Amino acid sequence: MKRNAKVSTAVIRRLPRYYRQLSELQEAGVVRISSSALGKSMGLTASQIRQDLFCFGGFGQQGYGYKVDSLKGEIGEILGINQGHTLVVLGAGNLGRALIKNFKFSSNGFQLLAAFDVDPKVVGTQIAGVPVYHMDRLEELLAVHRVDVGLLTVPMAAAQEAGDRLAAAGVKGLWNFTNYELNIPQDSGVVVESVHFSDSLLALSYMISQQEKAEKAPEEEPQ
Amino acid sequence: MKRNAKVSTAVIRRLPRYYRQLSELQEAGVVRISSSALGKSMGLTASQIRQDLFCFGGFGQQGYGYKVDSLKGEIGEILGINQGHTLVVLGAGNLGRALIKNFKFSSNGFQLLAAFDVDPKVVGTQIAGVPVYHMDRLEELLAVHRVDVGLLTVPMAAAQEAGDRLAAAGVKGLWNFTNYELNIPQDSGVVVESVHFSDSLLALSYMISQQEKAEKAPEEEPQ
Repeated sequence: MKRNAKVSTAVIRRLPRYYRQLSELQEAGVVRISSSALGKSMGLTASQIRQDLFCFGGFGQQGYGYKVDSLKGEIGEILGINQGHTLVVLGAGNLGRALIKNFKFSSNGFQLLAAFDVDPKVVGTQIAGVPVYHMDRLEELLAVHRVDVGLLTVPMAAAQEAGDRLAAAGVKGLWNFTNYELNIPQDSGVVVESVHFSDSLLALSYMISQQEKAEKAPEEEPQ
Repeated sequence: MKRNAKVSTAVIRRLPRYYRQLSELQEAGVVRISSSALGKSMGLTASQIRQDLFCFGGFGQQGYGYKVDSLKGEIGEILGINQGHTLVVLGAGNLGRALIKNFKFSSNGFQLLAAFDVDPKVVGTQIAGVPVYHMDRLEELLAVHRVDVGLLTVPMAAAQEAGDRLAAAGVKGLWNFTNYELNIPQDSGVVVESVHFSDSLLALSYMISQQEKAEKAPEEEPQ
């Protein structure tokens, strides 16, 4: 498959949405879908869909649309879903527990191996079948098991040290839920993806304010 | 303050990051910061910072930099942080509880009024001081209290109905954690902001795959 080396961040951010949408279509028994129907279901135009997918070699056939299962498979391949990625959770507090219990790691191609915490009440227990070890044993266990991603749900004050230890132990990525902006050198080869809840809520707050302004002064902002 | 009406989504998405960074600087006692220093701390160039802030009327002074507290105040104003927004949580399961207990709603200008659930074990209790009511009472309570945002942490299968009920009850925004793509008509005036954990993990998975490819074939991808 030909792939364009330069893919914009916006396209990369849309790929997981395609994957999710195609999974839902597949579950609903849809075999084939046109770019306009796929676009409509995702709030995108047909031409945007065609452009996005063209970046990755173009999978559609003119006048035929996309085969849902093969498009899903190809996008999954691009996303690295079949790479057998492994993951550990650092911090088995409320959020860590919620993710361990509810998040479908395996649907996203990740095997959740273990969790780490310092609280004697949870160390040594299991959460939804996942063993919880003491943080002191992190390096020891990561020396034995290949771990690709560390999910950080430790308190903000412990975030940087946890990230540094994971990076030193050889993880390839950090999935950061701590609301702390991790400082990991770019040349370390460790990729950081942060989920900042407050950024999301503030963006919503902004959109609501804009909406209210538009409603108050419709003549100024016709849209 | 002059504000440019057309602001790109990318800039809007960066505004909460500015706000977060400025809050941290303020806590650290920093009074004034240059655009280059602010940029460096956020992984952006000085010119990108100046451009972004110019969209909102431009706050800096040539050769002087930005006053941290007033810039934070102005960005907070744009983000609607002082609007007295109110919020309810629908779904007091693991994730809902984790957010109620840990997320700093008030730092983001939101007052968390109540949670709703159907589980008799949690209905009638309090989580971190927040009362949990039965979902049957949603409309009744929203008729009495102005609620701006509904946070959805219900199961995926209950997401659409919960969103529809909140929209009908007059909320202005939905903060959607259900991993379900809500279908809310654009002309309803209700804004939807979704936090899709799997999109984030798959983006990380993609970046890791790209990184591995680059390491395997450095001569092909020099960066």
